[in-house]
Amino acid sequence: MNIHIITIGDEILIGQIVDTNSAWMGQELNLSNFSVSKIKTIGDTLEEIETTLDASLKKVDVVLLTGGLGATKDDVTKKALANYFGRELVYHEETHERIKRLFAKFGRKPTEAHYHQSFMPAGATIITNRMGTAPGMWLEQNGKIVVSMPGVPYEMKWLMGHEIIPRLRSIFPGQALVHRTIQTAGQGESHIAKAIAHFEDTLPDNIKLAYLPSMGKVRLRLSAKGTKGESAAVLERILDQKQAEIEALIPQFIFGYGLDSLESVLGDILKKQGKTIATAESCTGGHLAHTITSIPGCSAYFMGSIIAYSNEVKVRQLGVEATTLKEHGAVSEPTVIQMVKGVCQLLGTDMAIATSGIAGPGGGTPEKPVGTVWIAVGNQDKVETMKLEIGKDRLTNIQYTSSRALNMARKFLLGG
Amino acid sequence: MNIHIITIGDEILIGQIVDTNSAWMGQELNLSNFSVSKIKTIGDTLEEIETTLDASLKKVDVVLLTGGLGATKDDVTKKALANYFGRELVYHEETHERIKRLFAKFGRKPTEAHYHQSFMPAGATIITNRMGTAPGMWLEQNGKIVVSMPGVPYEMKWLMGHEIIPRLRSIFPGQALVHRTIQTAGQGESHIAKAIAHFEDTLPDNIKLAYLPSMGKVRLRLSAKGTKGESAAVLERILDQKQAEIEALIPQFIFGYGLDSLESVLGDILKKQGKTIATAESCTGGHLAHTITSIPGCSAYFMGSIIAYSNEVKVRQLGVEATTLKEHGAVSEPTVIQMVKGVCQLLGTDMAIATSGIAGPGGGTPEKPVGTVWIAVGNQDKVETMKLEIGKDRLTNIQYTSSRALNMARKFLLGG
Repeated sequence: MNIHIITIGDEILIGQIVDTNSAWMGQELNLSNFSVSKIKTIGDTLEEIETTLDASLKKVDVVLLTGGLGATKDDVTKKALANYFGRELVYHEETHERIKRLFAKFGRKPTEAHYHQSFMPAGATIITNRMGTAPGMWLEQNGKIVVSMPGVPYEMKWLMGHEIIPRLRSIFPGQALVHRTIQTAGQGESHIAKAIAHFEDTLPDNIKLAYLPSMGKVRLRLSAKGTKGESAAVLERILDQKQAEIEALIPQFIFGYGLDSLESVLGDILKKQGKTIATAESCTGGHLAHTITSIPGCSAYFMGSIIAYSNEVKVRQLGVEATTLKEHGAVSEPTVIQMVKGVCQLLGTDMAIATSGIAGPGGGTPEKPVGTVWIAVGNQDKVETMKLEIGKDRLTNIQYTSSRALNMARKFLLGG
Repeated sequence: MNIHIITIGDEILIGQIVDTNSAWMGQELNLSNFSVSKIKTIGDTLEEIETTLDASLKKVDVVLLTGGLGATKDDVTKKALANYFGRELVYHEETHERIKRLFAKFGRKPTEAHYHQSFMPAGATIITNRMGTAPGMWLEQNGKIVVSMPGVPYEMKWLMGHEIIPRLRSIFPGQALVHRTIQTAGQGESHIAKAIAHFEDTLPDNIKLAYLPSMGKVRLRLSAKGTKGESAAVLERILDQKQAEIEALIPQFIFGYGLDSLESVLGDILKKQGKTIATAESCTGGHLAHTITSIPGCSAYFMGSIIAYSNEVKVRQLGVEATTLKEHGAVSEPTVIQMVKGVCQLLGTDMAIATSGIAGPGGGTPEKPVGTVWIAVGNQDKVETMKLEIGKDRLTNIQYTSSRALNMARKFLLGG
């Protein structure tokens, strides 16, 4: 069951706001076994709305529109729908009374623009919007369904969750569709693809595999469709099997599932093992601590960090030996080892992560070009190190280093 | 000059990632006098790409595609382009050599998938991608231009900024268009709009003012079009005048121009004054240090930070008095004052910024709800403080705190 989403608003086309609505809708519709086959973003004109709607209704039976239902002049969605379906805009008393009551509650009077909000295409099912003034509209004609919702995210989400998706599910019980996401880190997309090439080549037609890479991580998403009438439960069992096959092929790269992140998984392991962590950061400059502290409840295991940007801080706070800095430089294995040990002692943690590198764009040398980074994880008893040669822009070098460092810390705790 | 953007990727349709690329592209293209009239997001299939491209080329002369150019099997954009334009995929040696060199640098060998990345539609102009392996492709046929770029945001941004937009500008010079961005901090959009309402109402038709708010900052963008044939130089002089008028109305909120950020402006002031800075962070957890160190060359003034997430680190490293924590709590004015003084002394800097707050979602109380934050800036001689009550989600509370703290540090250095 394919659906098109049409997002209406000049503010999206000029990039003043990012369209997060359609991603949320795509996710929710997928979870309900509907599939979004196209998202279109268009401007606030009658002609654009009508022609785009027409093109979509030639391809699919259900089109969901968001945006263009507010009280201001550039909101033309309703008029476009009335034109397209050859209907009049008629006064909808219930909506007008609702708007008047809403305003009375705040001691205000609706404007004339709000009066116009009460006109709806004749024959449309009006769906009350408990989160705002503009209701949703559900139109059916010649077996096609068009639903229009306001673009305000929490209004759209309320309407989708409470009204639209339940109505669609009752009309189209449909094919089952099940997803499974496997999170990997430490290897690039192409290497993972090679390692599981045979697995991928022998997947049945109703199961798809997608690679979603970002910053040292690759998410593998398996999607199974009940094309032969398989139920969701049957598809889940098939994906259990497929997931197990991937796990057997690349166990060393898998760190989690679904919405797991390296920082959330690291936090879970630390909590489970009752251990604490600190960071000693040079090139990552606080990004690693920021990533760890993006997880709610991290104060249970994260004590703090020493951001040692200057060599003096490395020596005085972390106890890195001046001779080490002189002989090997700040970007070196001996330095990050001493940083790990120093911060563990200073903040009294069970383990620590240290980074030192050349984030760029300046500061590179032929021996240590921009993107050269040393990472160490461990404690007084045991330290593991890694050298990276990333060579990207400053922010990417920093983010990629954090990602690799978190994965090293995770493996250290798991004894790998 | 209208352009369509086509974003390719199942991961967007199912809402696993939000498409931020097209918003960025819309913004940049607008700044260069191009207008995005439609954004389409579609799946990774040959048929979908070809039919969507065909529909767009019937409406506009330029189509920009992102996504579907990686090294794995679900990347079909190239093949779709070759089919659509009736061309063969031919081996592009330069691309293959570049990929081999990139891998050799890291002591690795490209996989067979990378070899396939070197095949391009015949006749396409290959645009080197300095940020990754997959190059951009520029195809022209029958007066139509189709450009394909990888979907990785920093790769796409590099290609757009360095190659695609300059080429489009040289082909379609169009009307003169000049922009001016004024950066403000410390007041919301509606307050600024009120303060400059008369200025805005009296702007001529060919000058537009846009408000671009984000995290305690509002960018004001003036755009002047040469609708009566004015040259860019004439428009620049008109905007000089308009900028001066805004400066006279809200001098206290302006911190910079163009691409200035609070962290770049703060860095410039520190360098100019020959001063050094450190941070002592609790609720921002390293985000403030990360923001300061996102500026190349910050090692000239940024010495380091103590991320004091636990109270023990606040006491032992920063010298916050245990009685202060007991009597006032960690989220209090006396605590952040002691944190500022402690870190200045410890790292020997001329000034410091300290933060302590409840980032949420847990940890709030009736007296100190989630989003309650104390900030202090200063040194041993003088400290300024501010209390915030933000009350948003965890990440927003953190980012907003960093933004306000940077602005306070800037004003402290300027003696305001």
